[in-house]
Amino acid sequence: MSTKNSFSAGVLIIGNEILSGRTQDLNLAYIGQKLNKSGILVKEASVIPDDIDAIVEAVLKLHKKYDYVFTTGGIGPTHDDVTAIAIAKAFDCELEYNKEAIKILENRYEDRLNEGRKGMARMPKGAKLIPNPVSQVPGFIIENVYVMAGIPEVMKGMLDCAAKDLMQGEPVHSITIRCRLAEGDIAAGLTDIQNKFPDIDIGSYPFFKIGNFGLRIILRTQDNGQILIAAGLIEQLIRSLGDTPIYEKEESY
Amino acid sequence: MSTKNSFSAGVLIIGNEILSGRTQDLNLAYIGQKLNKSGILVKEASVIPDDIDAIVEAVLKLHKKYDYVFTTGGIGPTHDDVTAIAIAKAFDCELEYNKEAIKILENRYEDRLNEGRKGMARMPKGAKLIPNPVSQVPGFIIENVYVMAGIPEVMKGMLDCAAKDLMQGEPVHSITIRCRLAEGDIAAGLTDIQNKFPDIDIGSYPFFKIGNFGLRIILRTQDNGQILIAAGLIEQLIRSLGDTPIYEKEESY
Repeated sequence: MSTKNSFSAGVLIIGNEILSGRTQDLNLAYIGQKLNKSGILVKEASVIPDDIDAIVEAVLKLHKKYDYVFTTGGIGPTHDDVTAIAIAKAFDCELEYNKEAIKILENRYEDRLNEGRKGMARMPKGAKLIPNPVSQVPGFIIENVYVMAGIPEVMKGMLDCAAKDLMQGEPVHSITIRCRLAEGDIAAGLTDIQNKFPDIDIGSYPFFKIGNFGLRIILRTQDNGQILIAAGLIEQLIRSLGDTPIYEKEESY
Repeated sequence: MSTKNSFSAGVLIIGNEILSGRTQDLNLAYIGQKLNKSGILVKEASVIPDDIDAIVEAVLKLHKKYDYVFTTGGIGPTHDDVTAIAIAKAFDCELEYNKEAIKILENRYEDRLNEGRKGMARMPKGAKLIPNPVSQVPGFIIENVYVMAGIPEVMKGMLDCAAKDLMQGEPVHSITIRCRLAEGDIAAGLTDIQNKFPDIDIGSYPFFKIGNFGLRIILRTQDNGQILIAAGLIEQLIRSLGDTPIYEKEESY
């Protein structure tokens, strides 16, 4: 385990259906939350189509910039699943039938293991498998890139397995304070507090739906020493403006 | 109105809270669906932090590649709202108080119009406003970039207004066919059909939750002439494999 305090990640969401709006992506939020617990911060994400050239370009860009890259989508058995081909191309690797993956597929499909399904075992040479506790068909790791399924339930199973072997940084600590103030009334005071605590990321997120509105102020940091003091100052600020702060469930991301 | 058949767009989702997983993005799916009705295809999306340099780099990249760019997030009154500053920097424009925007803010806030709120009228010189029917504070357009709010309800109101003046291409037509087959059993037949219809994007999307599983096959195209024939062939394929296809609500995206 590294003792470095913080690691970075890029996420690649692969799928025409996400860009067309036909499917709501749920994977980025899960990945962001899960990695924060290991002190790995998602610095950027890209949503791209099932297109080999687009995947090659995007994965290489993220591979160079961040400690980790996590991809979702495009590893099934149909014609629109081109992620493994693209990743092999990006790293100039041969695409081969991974023996360990073939064994998993043989066990899972028995006499239903046709050419289409066998295609799911075609991976870049040297890839290491990511177990899939949901539907067995594995993902894979090559260099710092983790290639996972697009179906949220399957992706979660894979990431939960893969996360055990990731480098561990300081988890992200967060406090959420809700109030009924308007953002414009608290902006100046909040800027002062943010300036005092440069290592804490203070975000201000108004919400409103019919019959309900308000503001969430979220403090996030990997340095736990100061977060309670900053939260206390925000609480004072809210009270000084005539409102009562509500602390929402405190979470570690 | 242009008579060109198809236009392209890039989307920029701006916000630390999306990358941390604290907030589930809902804007990309809405933008994708809405634009498809105007024949504008979202080709890629990026999720980036509230960071001026990251925004400048990402917006310029998308600006050059696509007919349109749509951004969400970072245009409120607090310290973490830096989108307008970044967009002005990207296009080497002066940042100024937009007179029309100031008037809207004066009407909305009256004597509560403080410096923080006034900041929401700071826009790149020459920006054109995007009306906000939900909470009045406007977005803006500069070059081919549409700068909108991050709150989904507000973003939708802005996009619905802006969409009226966008170039109109041929809407995306789509047909969704659901079945209970496994992807691996239909893969080969589906590849044959895809190869016959290169202008139709045929996607295969398995789903499963506890007690429910199956496969959605989605046909999408801007050329309406062939889609029913392709759907008919897929229906035949499903029946030949012993299952009964179900047509889901046919939508225009």
